[in-house]
Amino acid sequence: MDSKLKPLREQIDAIDAQILDLLSKRARLAQEVGHVKAETNAPVFRPEREAQVLRGVADRNPGPLAGTDLQTIFREIMSACRALEKRVSVAYLGPEGTFSEQAVFKQFGHAVEGEPCVSIDEVFRATEAGTADFGVVPIENSSEGTINRTLDLLLQTSLTISGEISIPVHHSLMTKSGSMEGITRICAHSQALAQCQAWLNQHFPNIERQPVASNGEAARMASEDASVAAIAGEIAGEKYGLQVVHANIQDDPHNRTRFAVIGRLQTSPSGRDQTSLVLSVPNQPGAVYRMLAPLAEHGVSMTRFESRPARTGAWEYYFFVDVEGHAHDEKVVRALDELKRTAAFFKVLGSYPLAL
Amino acid sequence: MDSKLKPLREQIDAIDAQILDLLSKRARLAQEVGHVKAETNAPVFRPEREAQVLRGVADRNPGPLAGTDLQTIFREIMSACRALEKRVSVAYLGPEGTFSEQAVFKQFGHAVEGEPCVSIDEVFRATEAGTADFGVVPIENSSEGTINRTLDLLLQTSLTISGEISIPVHHSLMTKSGSMEGITRICAHSQALAQCQAWLNQHFPNIERQPVASNGEAARMASEDASVAAIAGEIAGEKYGLQVVHANIQDDPHNRTRFAVIGRLQTSPSGRDQTSLVLSVPNQPGAVYRMLAPLAEHGVSMTRFESRPARTGAWEYYFFVDVEGHAHDEKVVRALDELKRTAAFFKVLGSYPLAL
Repeated sequence: MDSKLKPLREQIDAIDAQILDLLSKRARLAQEVGHVKAETNAPVFRPEREAQVLRGVADRNPGPLAGTDLQTIFREIMSACRALEKRVSVAYLGPEGTFSEQAVFKQFGHAVEGEPCVSIDEVFRATEAGTADFGVVPIENSSEGTINRTLDLLLQTSLTISGEISIPVHHSLMTKSGSMEGITRICAHSQALAQCQAWLNQHFPNIERQPVASNGEAARMASEDASVAAIAGEIAGEKYGLQVVHANIQDDPHNRTRFAVIGRLQTSPSGRDQTSLVLSVPNQPGAVYRMLAPLAEHGVSMTRFESRPARTGAWEYYFFVDVEGHAHDEKVVRALDELKRTAAFFKVLGSYPLAL
Repeated sequence: MDSKLKPLREQIDAIDAQILDLLSKRARLAQEVGHVKAETNAPVFRPEREAQVLRGVADRNPGPLAGTDLQTIFREIMSACRALEKRVSVAYLGPEGTFSEQAVFKQFGHAVEGEPCVSIDEVFRATEAGTADFGVVPIENSSEGTINRTLDLLLQTSLTISGEISIPVHHSLMTKSGSMEGITRICAHSQALAQCQAWLNQHFPNIERQPVASNGEAARMASEDASVAAIAGEIAGEKYGLQVVHANIQDDPHNRTRFAVIGRLQTSPSGRDQTSLVLSVPNQPGAVYRMLAPLAEHGVSMTRFESRPARTGAWEYYFFVDVEGHAHDEKVVRALDELKRTAAFFKVLGSYPLAL
């Protein structure tokens, strides 16, 4: 076998030498880019440019490598080259070694300076104060729904969303004993129950399902009550000393958590973008419907709509809306102009490339 | 600025196209390697070969990229190519999104099938049963010292250590209140106290330090007693609701946790290897000294020596010993032959490339 492998390995080694050479050339060009940018104080991290490179790699992929694997490689190439201009610092909800840190790596590659923070508030503070160039905060979680604290802080902050990150998450069915014997209720956040519905119908059609405040709360309940099973991430299960009965029970194996990248950067259009807004209207019948009319009229698709009670008035809500397209796109410009005139409150949180 | 950046970006794009082309060529060669290997059922993952490629990349690095950043890129290149032969499955101590999963990515790149397990025992079981191709288990942790359960299972298993992984870890000083007011004791595992000694001498020379069973135990104590501060990782602090007073207080910023890769694979020599052994001797004066004599005689350096009480006899210990070199290296062969004759118990756990 070795006689057959040897020539192949020598060819691979020769290719690696060429790749190494090209990477060094690319890095020297990145340094020149850095010098040009430094003259005008232009940003080191350009999410739209990196998104375009990653999409281009997948689009032009001649095979046989998987497109996502190629993107992982090029993300690290850009990260390493970017670090020659400046090692970007990123505040995130710590501790180290958790999903938030993985989200940082997924957006910025591994050549970054991660700064774990103890709370979402502190991520905003560190980024606003300039201690960190960017912040990464959870914005929507398939276990707990929307992360309200992030929405509240986005409402107040002067920072802009410059990117989004999407990380796969899995749900597990867990109990104190590790078996389903004696279990009479399965508890979880309603969103998690919905995401595991088909599996639950197939495996435990006769056990009552009870929606509770969060999957963490369900895990706590299961730790105190031997008749309760919880659906939660395994981190929550470990925290409360639960044992996994079945792993990965969510119906969609691509269940994900979304993170927002926040910073002072206004991301330019990348060609496949999304814009996040906050809107509010007076509490009148049909007001929300009328509020959304400009989007429909100008053919702008809404991809997300969340309401959040305002703290200021008894009957007011803020609406967190994601629309397709960049705030500089012609039809989005027109729709937003109109929204701005009709809404009682209007704030663009940012435009950014769609997560890969 | 754009007029200056455009030609540079075009050159970068041209280089990316060449890299993409070379990666595809490399991938096709990797597929041929896979076909040759398949004929003889040879292993897909060759730790010694990957270690050599990564060292070669750093050694031949013409700059300006950092050697470690280049290694990250090439690790992902090899991972993606290897996935074309077979997506290697790796059992690890879950849950997902923790340091153990990061260790998996650090050894195998991101193109793997990770299988989170609820216990170290289950990682061994899944790997022994062949459910997973490899297992990744913590072996030595700068917070808790040696992971005894891993050592016990290594003693019994038919699996071999085929690699080691080293991950940076940080200690933080934490209290219930987030301040040091009213704190009279700082608790931690003795190893963690030692690792933060200089920092503690400088900042809190007059507060008593108390070694406890583990940093996790220290965190639990601090959560129940407002006069106790704990030194621990932030994951433990979060588990017990503590707040960080000072982050990263360890004297050595490169404090690390070690993981072992276990599997059925016997790793060939890579040129810079280490061999792990378990030894035991009768309980007689000077027995340990005599046991180690063959290593000294044959010029084999010992890099680690841990004792572990045997469960079988009242006065017996097992010794976990790491030595420099591969079990196939001439002087190591001679030293091990002699050890085998003189030790009451002798087991080679495996030879593998030194962690990067």
